[in-house]
Amino acid sequence: MHLFYTPDIQDQTYQLDEEESKHCIKVLRLKIGDQINLIDGKGGLYLAEIIDDHPKRTVLNILQIKTEYAKRNHYLHIAVAPTKNIDRFEWFLEKATEIGIDEVTPIICERSERKEIKIDRSNKIITSAIKQSLKAYHPKLNNYIPFKTFISQASADLKLIAHCDEGQKPGIAEKFIPHQKYLILIGPEGDFSPTEIAAALESGFIAITLGDSRLRTETAALEACFEINYLNRE
Amino acid sequence: MHLFYTPDIQDQTYQLDEEESKHCIKVLRLKIGDQINLIDGKGGLYLAEIIDDHPKRTVLNILQIKTEYAKRNHYLHIAVAPTKNIDRFEWFLEKATEIGIDEVTPIICERSERKEIKIDRSNKIITSAIKQSLKAYHPKLNNYIPFKTFISQASADLKLIAHCDEGQKPGIAEKFIPHQKYLILIGPEGDFSPTEIAAALESGFIAITLGDSRLRTETAALEACFEINYLNRE
Repeated sequence: MHLFYTPDIQDQTYQLDEEESKHCIKVLRLKIGDQINLIDGKGGLYLAEIIDDHPKRTVLNILQIKTEYAKRNHYLHIAVAPTKNIDRFEWFLEKATEIGIDEVTPIICERSERKEIKIDRSNKIITSAIKQSLKAYHPKLNNYIPFKTFISQASADLKLIAHCDEGQKPGIAEKFIPHQKYLILIGPEGDFSPTEIAAALESGFIAITLGDSRLRTETAALEACFEINYLNRE
Repeated sequence: MHLFYTPDIQDQTYQLDEEESKHCIKVLRLKIGDQINLIDGKGGLYLAEIIDDHPKRTVLNILQIKTEYAKRNHYLHIAVAPTKNIDRFEWFLEKATEIGIDEVTPIICERSERKEIKIDRSNKIITSAIKQSLKAYHPKLNNYIPFKTFISQASADLKLIAHCDEGQKPGIAEKFIPHQKYLILIGPEGDFSPTEIAAALESGFIAITLGDSRLRTETAALEACFEINYLNRE
């Protein structure tokens, strides 16, 4: 069934905006009486029926509501340095949304070649990914922030930093506690600087390894996402 | 250190081809006496020194050889239906190479919208991924083949098929045996047909789930790759 993202839904009836109305009536050719699904991004999955198939102001009547649809059993926040090639960062956002993530913060590090990202554009990628993978919760994308500002205010039950410096580091599994709030830091192409790593450890982050493979920034971030979701799987 | 892929290396000296010579001397500006790394794709990692910095016929002298460099402790073969949008399939090849894979076979299924792929182009993506992630083994990419032909001749210690049909299915972990040869089937956007699923089970494949998220073809293939590598991690 066709799915629409309606974050501002409140009442028994809902009017799609002009763009969504056009998509619904002109593109999908839906008519009065046809049913569609809606997600509000806050856990609500709705079954709705078209009661006015106006091509600019389509009106829906809500038939059913499921709250906390496919609620996650943990909270995963990944803070990652946006990649020089933005496609790789956006790819991470799409894949992490499919696999399961709650919050993403782009962090600007000493060795970051990219110093900013277009949050609106990135949010659209997350939104289309939740629609594609039928997720009722919309991951939160924060604005980009300097690394040091971020770690000084970041909070979680388990704070981890994945870096490539020498020395034995435990895997996530060795530090893992199920169903917690996790925060994982992933560095830029040139990795975190020694100063940044020291500052993170100082702020209570635990250094971890994501395995022996040399991974690109976006692959490391997705590997971390995979591992946390996998370890919390029931 | 700069890394070159030299699958045909045999002797104590090696001459880079014209393109690689140009890259080495004109682009990277390397000179006689400079050292580079070579990988042969068969487990060999070489340290070499430039003894002739000719821009079209650069000659190297091999200083050191490591064989079976970062040898994998299992063999993973993923047979996946190429995605309609080829970028998604190529993205899977790059990421699976980074995380760890040995063999990929593109399978053409009943519901495949894409019926062929350019193997050379896909192989180039794998090659650049092994260079980027410093892998001495080059994953094998087979030519595309019809699903039914493939399953009739496919062999492995553990043969799995991930499909989205109703019914309880075990996760990979429940069927897992470490350090084996694994073969996993991943279907096209429209999933495998009931006939294809039945044929696979008939041929000794075990149906498994990759979790509760609705994943795109390329994400499902990478999830399987991640799980097998993760379960074999030491």
